[in-house]
Formats: sequence, C-alpha cells, structure tokens
Amino acid sequence: MTQVIRTSAELREKVATWKRSGMLVGVVPTMGALHDGHMSLVREARKQSDRVIVTIFVNPMQFNNKDDLAKYPRNEDHDLALLEAEGVDVLFAPGVHEVYPDGFATVVSVSGVSEPLEGAFRPGHFEGVATVVSKLFGMTQAGRAFFGEKDWQQVQVVKRMVEDLNVPIRVIPCPTIREDDGLAMSSRNVRLSPEERALAPKLYAEMQAAAEAIRAGAPVAETLAAAKTAISAAGFGDWDYLELRTADGLRPMTELSEPARMLAAVYLGDVRLIDNIAV
Amino acid sequence: MTQVIRTSAELREKVATWKRSGMLVGVVPTMGALHDGHMSLVREARKQSDRVIVTIFVNPMQFNNKDDLAKYPRNEDHDLALLEAEGVDVLFAPGVHEVYPDGFATVVSVSGVSEPLEGAFRPGHFEGVATVVSKLFGMTQAGRAFFGEKDWQQVQVVKRMVEDLNVPIRVIPCPTIREDDGLAMSSRNVRLSPEERALAPKLYAEMQAAAEAIRAGAPVAETLAAAKTAISAAGFGDWDYLELRTADGLRPMTELSEPARMLAAVYLGDVRLIDNIAV
Repeated sequence: MTQVIRTSAELREKVATWKRSGMLVGVVPTMGALHDGHMSLVREARKQSDRVIVTIFVNPMQFNNKDDLAKYPRNEDHDLALLEAEGVDVLFAPGVHEVYPDGFATVVSVSGVSEPLEGAFRPGHFEGVATVVSKLFGMTQAGRAFFGEKDWQQVQVVKRMVEDLNVPIRVIPCPTIREDDGLAMSSRNVRLSPEERALAPKLYAEMQAAAEAIRAGAPVAETLAAAKTAISAAGFGDWDYLELRTADGLRPMTELSEPARMLAAVYLGDVRLIDNIAV
Repeated sequence: MTQVIRTSAELREKVATWKRSGMLVGVVPTMGALHDGHMSLVREARKQSDRVIVTIFVNPMQFNNKDDLAKYPRNEDHDLALLEAEGVDVLFAPGVHEVYPDGFATVVSVSGVSEPLEGAFRPGHFEGVATVVSKLFGMTQAGRAFFGEKDWQQVQVVKRMVEDLNVPIRVIPCPTIREDDGLAMSSRNVRLSPEERALAPKLYAEMQAAAEAIRAGAPVAETLAAAKTAISAAGFGDWDYLELRTADGLRPMTELSEPARMLAAVYLGDVRLIDNIAV
C-alpha cells in the first residue's frame, strides 16, 4: 500500500518514525507521467534502501517555457498504480504552494557544469532543479537519491550541489532506459505524432554511429556536423546542440582524450528530444 | 575533553555514531575569537542538545572587505580552552580548502530579507553566510543551531534559508550579550583603541533613548536623525545605517505599527560596529 503524502510536515513525521528504527530512506524525484525509465529507478531504490519515497512534482521553477510547463503530461492515478505495484512506501506529491509558499526567497545556483547545453538553452532551468532538489532532499532526509542518466547534465549538477553543500545523501545515477527501437524513454514522448514517433529513434542511431566513428579516430567536429546533417535530413527540426563533452565536468572536447559524453537536444515537431551516450 | 576535528569526513563519522544512539546534536557556528556572547550560545546549546559541536571558520566568502578578513582576530588555542571548560564535545575547525575545495561551484542566495542594511553595505556577505551555513548544517547534521541576535539580520536570513530549503534543523536565536557598560560583545571590539572603547557604549545608549522616544510616540525619521547626530557628535565616524525595520522581514517602517527592530552600523575609528534592539 503506497501512502500518498502532500505536505512536508506529514512527510517529516513519517520519515522520523523510519529514522528512529535506523532505516535507510531512498528517494526517486520525478515529475510524474511515469514510464519504465522511472520504474527502473524505483526498482534500484527498492534494492538499495529500506524505505522508498517517490516524489512527483512538476516544478514550475525549472521550466523556462510556460507552454512546455502547461503541456507537461500529468496522470497521478496511473502513476500511483505503478508505484503500488513496485511496493513504494510513500508517494510524496505536494502542491506548488506547499513547495513555494508565500515569501519563498532562496535559490541554489551551481555555476560551471550547469552553464552549457541545457543551461544555455533553458535559462534558469538548473537553478530550478538545484533548488527543488535541495528542498526534496531536506524534506525526505533520504540517504540515497536515484536519478536517470537520460538527464546526464542534471545528474552532474545535482552531484556538484550535493558535494558542495555537504548534503548527507548519496546520488545514484541509473542508466537510460530505451524503447526497443532505441528511443530514450521520456514523459514527453507521448506528445510525438505517430510519424514523429517513427522518426525519433534516428537520433540515437546516428549518435551511436558518430560515437563509434569518433572512438575509431574520426575528427570530432566533422563527425558531429555530419550526424546533425543526417538527423536533420531525416525530418527533425531545429537543433539546440549536438556536442562532445567531458563526462563529469561537461567541458568542451575537440578530441577524445578523457571519458566523454555525447549530448544532444533537437526538436521533432514541437517536442524537444534530448539524449546522451558514453563515447 | 573537546575533540578537534578538521575534515568533514571525520566529522560525519563522529556524528553518525551519535545519531545511531538517537542523540540530538546542537551546533554553534562561529568565526572564533570567542567571547561571552559566543559562550552564552554554547551554554544554551548544551542545555538543548545531547552533543554540542562548535564550528570555527573565518569564512572568506562572507567578507566583502579583504582588509577586514585579514584583520579578523584568530586565537584557536584560547578558544579551545574556553570550549573545554564548557564541556563542548567537538570543535570543528576546517581549513579554507576543506570548505571550498577546487571545483566548488554552488551558491545559496536569499533575496528580500538579505538585501537592505548589511546586504546593501556588504555586497555578497549574505550569500557567503547562507552558503557556508548550509554547508555547516550538512556537515554537522545538527538538529538545533544557535545564533546570536547581535547579528539580527543574519538570523533572519538563516531562518528564511532553513525554511525555504526545508533543512531539518531548528534555528534558536539567543539574546545579545553586552559588556557592563552596554557595548554589544563582538570579536572586533578588541581592535578598538582605549579611547574608542570608552566611547563605544554611546551607540547603544542613544539607540535605547531613541527606541524609548519612538515607543512614546515620537516621529521615527526625526528621532533616528537626532540619534545619528548625537552619536556622530560624540566622536563616531561614518554611518552605514540607523534604521527602524519590521522585526522578521526587515521591511522599512515609517511608524511603529508592528514588532520592530532598530538596527545600526557605524564606524568608530576603522572598526565597524553593529548593534540592534527591539523597539
């Protein structure tokens, strides 16, 4: 039986009873519209923790685009049924006013790793993420937090924040879960038309081919440019970026000299797809 | 026996053993150069907690003035002896690189209450305070934190940050401790010349007189202006501010309509004195 909790006061009481028994609490922060990617995080949390809290909060502070916020899919009953099936202990689903009450005035900012890529194309996004994640860590007092590598840069920002603010939690990144055709699972995929959905796996396929070429010694800039052209030619829209970056610090790389990540953000119709892979 | 700890890793281990026994940890964050004001916080922490950590860290991030940072008094042996005498369990005294290692990139900012007064005259000061206090709370995992009302605005900023980020700690403000002649105790007082030291209590005396007048119905602006003139005439230097503000939010007040605080910052020689009282 998954208990639904909506206030931080009630959550704190619940967590206090667990902590008194020495239990390790795991948290999976989500924005709902749960899919198998989220569920893999939940199963990992279940393995590594005594009690599991899944949070569902569509955080206005991390949306730079009001339209994207309005269109973000929401289906709590369906989400709750999935969490019940996995034996999640608590679904914490606070309202906006519970998270950001009147007078709220604090922002957590991470410089460096938050600045390129998503940070450049979604101004304020990672301040929203770092702030709400700080709050969720405070509210849940979890000892482990599970994040999907689908949002690779987010994982790096959260890890940086946790280390810098000495938050007593361990961040556990979990691999991206993909559809059978390779498309990275995302709550926004439901907004793709059937034609767009058929095209979508092309992004991952071309990224893989480019990564293989770069690993085999092909020049980075030219290989990425060719991949962008191929993906665009297949019918994708505007590019935000397709880049090779150092895996942890997300610094630019002109050649493959240390552990690297290839990261992409591109529009397909009016849906913005992101993906990333190891190189 | 007070144990001196210099790394957050060692502190975390220590705190973990306490937490396993269900102990409540109290923390008194200081910049050292301890005086009776600090010791009153330590005694309050002792009363309200099972274990007490005093932190000593002269935080470069909260000094907007490099000269003030360089001149800030430091005397750890003397401080340690005082803490031993009060039965403090741990003195946590990390180095600058332990608190801000290479790659450190996170800032905690509180808008609103941090902006006027000290915030206006010491740009970046409260970002430094909110950030280091967040870190110390994470490192110590304390359940109670004790702060002196001498730094009234700092208390309000920390309370706001704790509430906004849902930090699981209770902030306990403790009354300002004064010398027999009324001067608020401060680590910076040792930098006053004997003549300046003799003059210094005039600040508190005139603030008290002004508060009494305002409570009796005297007009706020005129009363504060007269107090500033009187204090300056006595031999003080430049004013940063002498203001009446709402006690919690530090909003400007033109008349006494809700709980209020009078706050002052003024130079005496090259020492900047601050003080505040209830009105």
